[in-house]
Amino acid sequence: MKNLGYYNGLCGPLEEMRVPMNDRVCWFGDGVYEATLSANYIIFALDEHINRFFNSAAMLYMIPDFTKTQLAELLKRLVQQVDSPGQLVYWQLTRGTADRTHAFPEHTAPNLWVMLRPLVMPNIHEKVKLITVEDTRFLHCNIKTLNLLPNVMASEQAKQAGCAEAVFHRGGRVTEGSHSNVHIFKNGVLRTAPADNLILPGIARAHIINHCKKLGIPVEEIPFTVEELLSADEVMVSSSSTFCRSASHINGQAAGGKAPAPLRKLQDSLLAEFYEATSLCGTAGEE
Amino acid sequence: MKNLGYYNGLCGPLEEMRVPMNDRVCWFGDGVYEATLSANYIIFALDEHINRFFNSAAMLYMIPDFTKTQLAELLKRLVQQVDSPGQLVYWQLTRGTADRTHAFPEHTAPNLWVMLRPLVMPNIHEKVKLITVEDTRFLHCNIKTLNLLPNVMASEQAKQAGCAEAVFHRGGRVTEGSHSNVHIFKNGVLRTAPADNLILPGIARAHIINHCKKLGIPVEEIPFTVEELLSADEVMVSSSSTFCRSASHINGQAAGGKAPAPLRKLQDSLLAEFYEATSLCGTAGEE
Repeated sequence: MKNLGYYNGLCGPLEEMRVPMNDRVCWFGDGVYEATLSANYIIFALDEHINRFFNSAAMLYMIPDFTKTQLAELLKRLVQQVDSPGQLVYWQLTRGTADRTHAFPEHTAPNLWVMLRPLVMPNIHEKVKLITVEDTRFLHCNIKTLNLLPNVMASEQAKQAGCAEAVFHRGGRVTEGSHSNVHIFKNGVLRTAPADNLILPGIARAHIINHCKKLGIPVEEIPFTVEELLSADEVMVSSSSTFCRSASHINGQAAGGKAPAPLRKLQDSLLAEFYEATSLCGTAGEE
Repeated sequence: MKNLGYYNGLCGPLEEMRVPMNDRVCWFGDGVYEATLSANYIIFALDEHINRFFNSAAMLYMIPDFTKTQLAELLKRLVQQVDSPGQLVYWQLTRGTADRTHAFPEHTAPNLWVMLRPLVMPNIHEKVKLITVEDTRFLHCNIKTLNLLPNVMASEQAKQAGCAEAVFHRGGRVTEGSHSNVHIFKNGVLRTAPADNLILPGIARAHIINHCKKLGIPVEEIPFTVEELLSADEVMVSSSSTFCRSASHINGQAAGGKAPAPLRKLQDSLLAEFYEATSLCGTAGEE
């Protein structure tokens, strides 16, 4: 298949898939999700994503009716059904199907969704342009929910400005991107916002921190300001589908570009891990 | 039919209706909605709801591909297909069907949904119990969006506490309920939060303000605190399906009950308008 949609055991081409109108995602966005990449039909960082998925669900009192192992086995099986070895591997859990009432419905099993489509990691050495946008989101950004309207609006604003990403800030404090985490290099140190309720604890972010430590780059998980963003040696946005890209411009002004060597070392280290974990030789990573 | 689901021209029993997995509501909650009541198959305050619906859509740059009149005609036709003369009349617009990307898809028409099911207004003279909950929602509460997770979580918290509604507050300031507006009577004056980005400009709220003016009750659209809520003469929650109910308890403590006469006058005035507008004699209201 070219792509794939899965819903509670049924699957088919994404465009043909239908879901019940009374799925609570339709009335409330009541669900959580995860997304990662596959290469060579091998899903990258799968266990980490599944762990975060179960955490997100638990924070909203959603109880999956499957185990982590069962989910991993399902995803591994489904990626085999899509033609492309490189895929966006996306899945979500919604609170079940029931007549619309705000409070949780009784005796309702959650619904498991999977969406797979071809995706190859972009050239992460290509610079991107960013805009900054006031962060008006709710205070549960640590949960990977399907309530993404402010992210949608900010992404569109970035697109309209010819930029790849919008960086949110609450007042002066940078939080994260509309679909990424944001980090800076300054004086040889990687600064990244702490994993509180204002940002998603990104899995690419966690890998960046680990790789920095391996590479001897000090890491500070301390908030930074828009001013510090604009004057940083390098500005990086990270996500599970783009890993770690650096910025050339923010709000139309040149940004970063003053520490290319540690940036390149970090990017190469991240890529090496990805290629090793998704290698068909299958000796490393999670597979 | 017992109830009805409608999606872009197709309709059938709600439980049987299916929607495309790639409707953007499924990935982002990317849409806006409205809800009101019908009685005698007549939809109450329909024009006001349709106006707010178009406003909500416009604030998210969603462009309906139908006119207000066409929507009104559709809704009036659909309510005739449901057995019960008293219905919840609910509709929503989502940003279209497309592969998942945060930014708006190109050349995609929005999707129009309708959901109808039997609903008769509850006895609004019955007192309700409330809890208070910190308001952690986004800063776009003036738009009636499908990003309702904090409302879902607060409603569930109220239900678990044996209460009908959760009242949000930002720090000390009361904003609104998880699916209602909140008002107080104090010393003969109705106090209600101003219609800024922290509350939905409720249509029941607008009617309450109008009826107060007609009844000679002064209205102040000024924020009030949790403390003022707890010590108010009466506390009222309003929504399009419950109009105006008053509270007997907040967080387990007795509340309100000190100004039953103006409360009753207001409620009776609201009910009289509803019964007149939805009367089969059809001389008043919007029909």
